[in-house]
Amino acid sequence: MKNILILGAGQSSSYLIAYLLQHAKAMDAFVTVGDLDLDLAKQRIADHPRGSAVLFDVNDAHLRSSQIQNSALVINMLPPVFQDLVAWDCVNHQKHMLSVSYRDQAVRDLDRDAQREGILLLCELGLDPGIDHMSAMKLIRQLRDSGGRIQSFCSYGSGIPAPEQEHNPMRYIITWNPRNVAMSGESGAQYMEEGRIKIVPFHQVFLHTWPVQVQGVGTLEAYPNRDSMAYLEAFGLEDVHTMIRGTLRYPGWSETWAQIVRLGLPNETLRIPNLAERSCREVVEMFLPLNITGAEIEQRVARYLHISPTGNIVEKMRWLGLFSDEKSGCPGDTSAALLIHLLNQKLPLGPEDRDMVVLVHELEVEYPGQNRRREKVTSTLVDRGEPGGFTAMAKTVGLPTAIAARLLLQGDLPLTGSHIPTHPSIYEPVLREIAKEGLSFTEEVIPLS
Amino acid sequence: MKNILILGAGQSSSYLIAYLLQHAKAMDAFVTVGDLDLDLAKQRIADHPRGSAVLFDVNDAHLRSSQIQNSALVINMLPPVFQDLVAWDCVNHQKHMLSVSYRDQAVRDLDRDAQREGILLLCELGLDPGIDHMSAMKLIRQLRDSGGRIQSFCSYGSGIPAPEQEHNPMRYIITWNPRNVAMSGESGAQYMEEGRIKIVPFHQVFLHTWPVQVQGVGTLEAYPNRDSMAYLEAFGLEDVHTMIRGTLRYPGWSETWAQIVRLGLPNETLRIPNLAERSCREVVEMFLPLNITGAEIEQRVARYLHISPTGNIVEKMRWLGLFSDEKSGCPGDTSAALLIHLLNQKLPLGPEDRDMVVLVHELEVEYPGQNRRREKVTSTLVDRGEPGGFTAMAKTVGLPTAIAARLLLQGDLPLTGSHIPTHPSIYEPVLREIAKEGLSFTEEVIPLS
Repeated sequence: MKNILILGAGQSSSYLIAYLLQHAKAMDAFVTVGDLDLDLAKQRIADHPRGSAVLFDVNDAHLRSSQIQNSALVINMLPPVFQDLVAWDCVNHQKHMLSVSYRDQAVRDLDRDAQREGILLLCELGLDPGIDHMSAMKLIRQLRDSGGRIQSFCSYGSGIPAPEQEHNPMRYIITWNPRNVAMSGESGAQYMEEGRIKIVPFHQVFLHTWPVQVQGVGTLEAYPNRDSMAYLEAFGLEDVHTMIRGTLRYPGWSETWAQIVRLGLPNETLRIPNLAERSCREVVEMFLPLNITGAEIEQRVARYLHISPTGNIVEKMRWLGLFSDEKSGCPGDTSAALLIHLLNQKLPLGPEDRDMVVLVHELEVEYPGQNRRREKVTSTLVDRGEPGGFTAMAKTVGLPTAIAARLLLQGDLPLTGSHIPTHPSIYEPVLREIAKEGLSFTEEVIPLS
Repeated sequence: MKNILILGAGQSSSYLIAYLLQHAKAMDAFVTVGDLDLDLAKQRIADHPRGSAVLFDVNDAHLRSSQIQNSALVINMLPPVFQDLVAWDCVNHQKHMLSVSYRDQAVRDLDRDAQREGILLLCELGLDPGIDHMSAMKLIRQLRDSGGRIQSFCSYGSGIPAPEQEHNPMRYIITWNPRNVAMSGESGAQYMEEGRIKIVPFHQVFLHTWPVQVQGVGTLEAYPNRDSMAYLEAFGLEDVHTMIRGTLRYPGWSETWAQIVRLGLPNETLRIPNLAERSCREVVEMFLPLNITGAEIEQRVARYLHISPTGNIVEKMRWLGLFSDEKSGCPGDTSAALLIHLLNQKLPLGPEDRDMVVLVHELEVEYPGQNRRREKVTSTLVDRGEPGGFTAMAKTVGLPTAIAARLLLQGDLPLTGSHIPTHPSIYEPVLREIAKEGLSFTEEVIPLS
């Protein structure tokens, strides 16, 4: 019986764990879930005969090493910062690793070691990054096979509330690690537009938005997502003139978040003394220069940022709780921790809430053999969560990983080295299997003049 | 014979290594210098009979572990990002570690482990952080012993060219890791002014400057340095109304660097394809929105930043090479790497150059027992390098570490756990010894009304 070790039992792991437990017998596998919060891990296992919950502290080298040693396959669902530690131990103990996090340079650099040890380090295996890569690669291949030359590639991903549900003023709910929402854009973004590389620093990312139409959903807004250029080579798109990966939100999110970034609140480094005892208003005041006047904090914030004190942005900031004078009770000690605390309090996924994931690829293709005919191809995936059941986010993040795990254990994923799922031997079977679970793309083709 | 392992043979290690080799016989010690660049390590050892150079790659766990195991004491001069790796191995092998880097949370968290293993992890042992802490603690203690209550604490550190030497337009030369210059301020800054905590995000740090008079030097400009609040408790200054640590530059540096930051150039994450083949002008263009017009890049940059296209800031940017259309030849692949490349090219320490380090403490003290008499106490250290010899930076960074190493080997530093040098058993002997080498502070007291 092969042991699958899943590290991290958070929101995003729920579907993955349930799926693997359900298929454990057929795979002749046992599922061990490790988390700092043992109760949460136990809850996910729910006394399944082929499952076990263990206390796992990634910073405890002995524990980490021994747990990894006792497994056939490690699925890393921990925050991105721990990915290297897990990957190194997997190489040391010759174990495969699957991960939903972005592949960073350290894991890229482990390619040769992983090949030498005969193991697979497969990252970016969730929704975005994950299904987006796989579906993009399949679409690109299909267009090429029919003689097309891709000129422009835009790809969008998102996890937002379903449009038909009742909305909070920010039109957002937390369905994944809120830390990634609070720190979104922190490294800036890079993309290519009309043949020119563009780089946007953190304090500008959320001001660089544009509208995107999504079939059956309506108009969303996009902001540029990290380093789009990193995928030019991975996707074999060296000839495109436009290459953009973007994140989608309901219109209005970004104009508000842009000002939260301009204030400086997404900061994970500076430690604010006694944060739990302070009010949010007090913390926001710290980000205002001493010489900004105005009777109310709303006025001072608005004056400093040059926005309207009675407009939408300040109103949303107030709704989020940034001007509250109650003790924050924040468990962390940075302004980023305070943002996470507010996001958790104000934008939780309620029992009646229904989330939605959206992936959209927009490609412009030219057919040189056919009178230079040009087409715009749009490929869209929209999936809604079940209120009270799994979220669309948990399902779309967990399913590709679960399927990859099954393929690996069956010996049907014969790759070694450090990879992202751009290889047909990964994306073909995974896309086939997720389609069976209702996750499939709709394509639309519009001729271009 | 005890083996001292020095990790990193860069510019900042030169004095340290020379000093320890000079005293090796008296200490009955042997000095091993490890660096990725074996030739550089050999150069530092210069065939000394009590020294040896070894190839050291901090990312090679086996090499790291075995080198540390074979030493009595490890001096970590590597870039800050590697400090945790070295500290963990020192704990595992029960070896003391001295480091000139800022103590991060991971090393703070190793306090109990270090105590249990009977070892000392002593960080922030260079100039700034280092001598600044030690001299501040001594001054604070001395003022308290004479009945004073400290109300305001401002402390400044700097490594700049000596004022009398011929200046380049930016009035700066690189005497330490240029990466730290390129990324300075990246986490923003926090300080306390008149009882109010103030937080400044990265894109504002270099706009938050103020003048500081330095005896024998003239007027310099200060910008806030990281998290000043972290030192309130360490220095026992919980009652002050003002607490600022600042970095000093010649006036004009910060207004230029502020615009480089606003453009977004200090970015270590986004990887620019084929950077070596691109010109700086091409890279700067990436940071400009497509809709900014103007025939020359200088005009477009100035329009985007709302600064004068013919003013000082744009002129300095041009001098630094940002608008050059020659191939950059940059060995890295990020815009931060390009900045480092330009700093190294344009601001190198020449053979005739003389650098200078400056530390200034400005304290306001009240004497409650003496009619609430108030004083401003200024304590200043200015040290100049020897052209062609050691820089003031190498001396002031290396000497405290070297002395702490000597004390440790002699058994005269009986602390265990994770520390910074705020304890008298560290700072008293170190300050005494560095004074013998000519590094002493001048005090000035001015009565306040």
